Amino acid sequence: MEVINLSEAAHPDHAIKWVDSEMLLLDQRVMPHVERFVRCTDAQQTAEAITAMVVRGAPAIGITAAYGVVLSVMHRLAEGKSNWRDAVITDLETLAASRPTAVNLFWAIDRMRKLIDEDSETLVDRLLIEARQIHQEDLIANRLMGELGSACITEPTSVITHCNAGGLATGGHGTAVGVIRTAFQRGKIEHVYADETRPWLQGSRLTAWELVHSGIPVSVIADSAASARMREGGIGWVIVGSDRIAANGDVANKIGTYQLAVAARHHGVKFMVVAPTSTLDLNVSCGEEIPIETREQSEILQCGGANIGAKGAKAWNPVFDVTPAELVDVIVTERGVIRNPAEKGIRAILR
Amino acid sequence: MEVINLSEAAHPDHAIKWVDSEMLLLDQRVMPHVERFVRCTDAQQTAEAITAMVVRGAPAIGITAAYGVVLSVMHRLAEGKSNWRDAVITDLETLAASRPTAVNLFWAIDRMRKLIDEDSETLVDRLLIEARQIHQEDLIANRLMGELGSACITEPTSVITHCNAGGLATGGHGTAVGVIRTAFQRGKIEHVYADETRPWLQGSRLTAWELVHSGIPVSVIADSAASARMREGGIGWVIVGSDRIAANGDVANKIGTYQLAVAARHHGVKFMVVAPTSTLDLNVSCGEEIPIETREQSEILQCGGANIGAKGAKAWNPVFDVTPAELVDVIVTERGVIRNPAEKGIRAILR
Repeated sequence: MEVINLSEAAHPDHAIKWVDSEMLLLDQRVMPHVERFVRCTDAQQTAEAITAMVVRGAPAIGITAAYGVVLSVMHRLAEGKSNWRDAVITDLETLAASRPTAVNLFWAIDRMRKLIDEDSETLVDRLLIEARQIHQEDLIANRLMGELGSACITEPTSVITHCNAGGLATGGHGTAVGVIRTAFQRGKIEHVYADETRPWLQGSRLTAWELVHSGIPVSVIADSAASARMREGGIGWVIVGSDRIAANGDVANKIGTYQLAVAARHHGVKFMVVAPTSTLDLNVSCGEEIPIETREQSEILQCGGANIGAKGAKAWNPVFDVTPAELVDVIVTERGVIRNPAEKGIRAILR
Repeated sequence: MEVINLSEAAHPDHAIKWVDSEMLLLDQRVMPHVERFVRCTDAQQTAEAITAMVVRGAPAIGITAAYGVVLSVMHRLAEGKSNWRDAVITDLETLAASRPTAVNLFWAIDRMRKLIDEDSETLVDRLLIEARQIHQEDLIANRLMGELGSACITEPTSVITHCNAGGLATGGHGTAVGVIRTAFQRGKIEHVYADETRPWLQGSRLTAWELVHSGIPVSVIADSAASARMREGGIGWVIVGSDRIAANGDVANKIGTYQLAVAARHHGVKFMVVAPTSTLDLNVSCGEEIPIETREQSEILQCGGANIGAKGAKAWNPVFDVTPAELVDVIVTERGVIRNPAEKGIRAILR
């Protein structure tokens, strides 16, 4: 992966750029103190960028994979071999294997795959239009969800969010952060407490950066401090994104989301999940069927790049967990709001 | 504070040493990858070492302050002024102001203060005997609590602990870690999950180091992963220490303890607090009266020494929280075990 610097300042809503037949990804591994892009020119590089978390966040991974399919076809056609479609199919498998939990990845690849049997003369243009469409639809969905989620918040309150479900994690505006942005514009958000979100620190690095960028008051907290903050009062909602939602309404999201949901229920704080319908997966009936990615132990044993953990100690590093539907008050999608998802699951919203 | 290197390897049970009329403190800010000591020769240096967390953990802070009183009297007598006792009293105030939450600090200073009206000829010897006594009593209390706590664990299980309540935090053996050590020797501990314990990472740096040192299998987890681990099953107990326990049984301990207690109750996991009676404070009726220390925002916005948090973001950094007695199943002291402390508080154990 080649790293390049652009002269313009990074913007939360432009983490994925398509420029001159290449994809540029804002390098979220080094944000917010270093602003640089990673250049992807084929599917292999795109898959590596997703695995390495140059780009992360379920909708953003889907959009990136869609452009990755365009790069694959461009690259394989340029090789001039007759069996280029076979090579593309292999590329799609490589893209699909880049991360296991976010279903948006498979959803976007499937949507792009449906086009690759079309006439090869216009195929690249057609694929690029589709990828841009996926990107644009996600931005529009986030703005819609911003309105729908904001409408659920009936009076001004402070909120807690976990990980980063912002512009950086999506095609722009954000899912959970999108609701916070819209609700803040409507005068409904007093203060945002951002879980720092170990081990990858998406909260302190990315969400705090986005909220400061938008002029929204934010305090970073240790993940373990959320309950103490709830007990002090004034927290009306926890608002998070999702990487996959099962048919019964169980929600996979960043490790720690489940603990936050347990804490919210204990304190009578409402729990909102904000996710486009591309995150809903009727192929899994419940959360236990969602594959949970486990990453390197070093992500826990290191901190801020420094070696921290005691020599000889192991670490357990699942990077997602499942929040059962019973602990979720509302799921906000661009097609509408599902209240009490434990009652009837998510099927109705997709009809 | 002068930093010195000793030729011997650091040992979890010897973090506080009295050598040749000086106190040497194992520098817990840089453990486990750097092993060095800080030398204290007066009360001011001792207070600075406590504030800076060279030494931490409620019982260890008490022991350190006791030796600090010895250093104060030695230093003030050596100055040769007639009003040396006034200077000592000021020193005791400096020591008492070094940190607000752990009551063992005030308990140890009060116990030492009772002696300073004695004949000055033998006062230093008498004070040193008392400080060594406080140190030794704590070690003995921890071994007793190890047995009493281990007896509460009826069958082999895995456990979760938070922060470091080990030899480093005490006069040796540890409170929560002491129970884990003793129970492991009795074949009752299968695996220990150590919360890394942001922001100061006592779990990954100190508890993991102590457990590896003792040959006890340990995996470090993100603080937010405790609930996901409980949901997987096999966790019988959460075992933690305490910095102060109110008359009604409410427990102040490292930030995140409360969230862990909420999670434990949700999953039917038993919650054990291990603390010597020097941690019990009948002067505060309930947890709301316990002063909770808030430390620098930079502790949250930095990680492993690196600047992480977005520029312009604030942080909320209370370093302790209060777990209400209702969420505590047993409090283990050296005088016996208090079951269901919410029923009758802690008074009976002190009679």
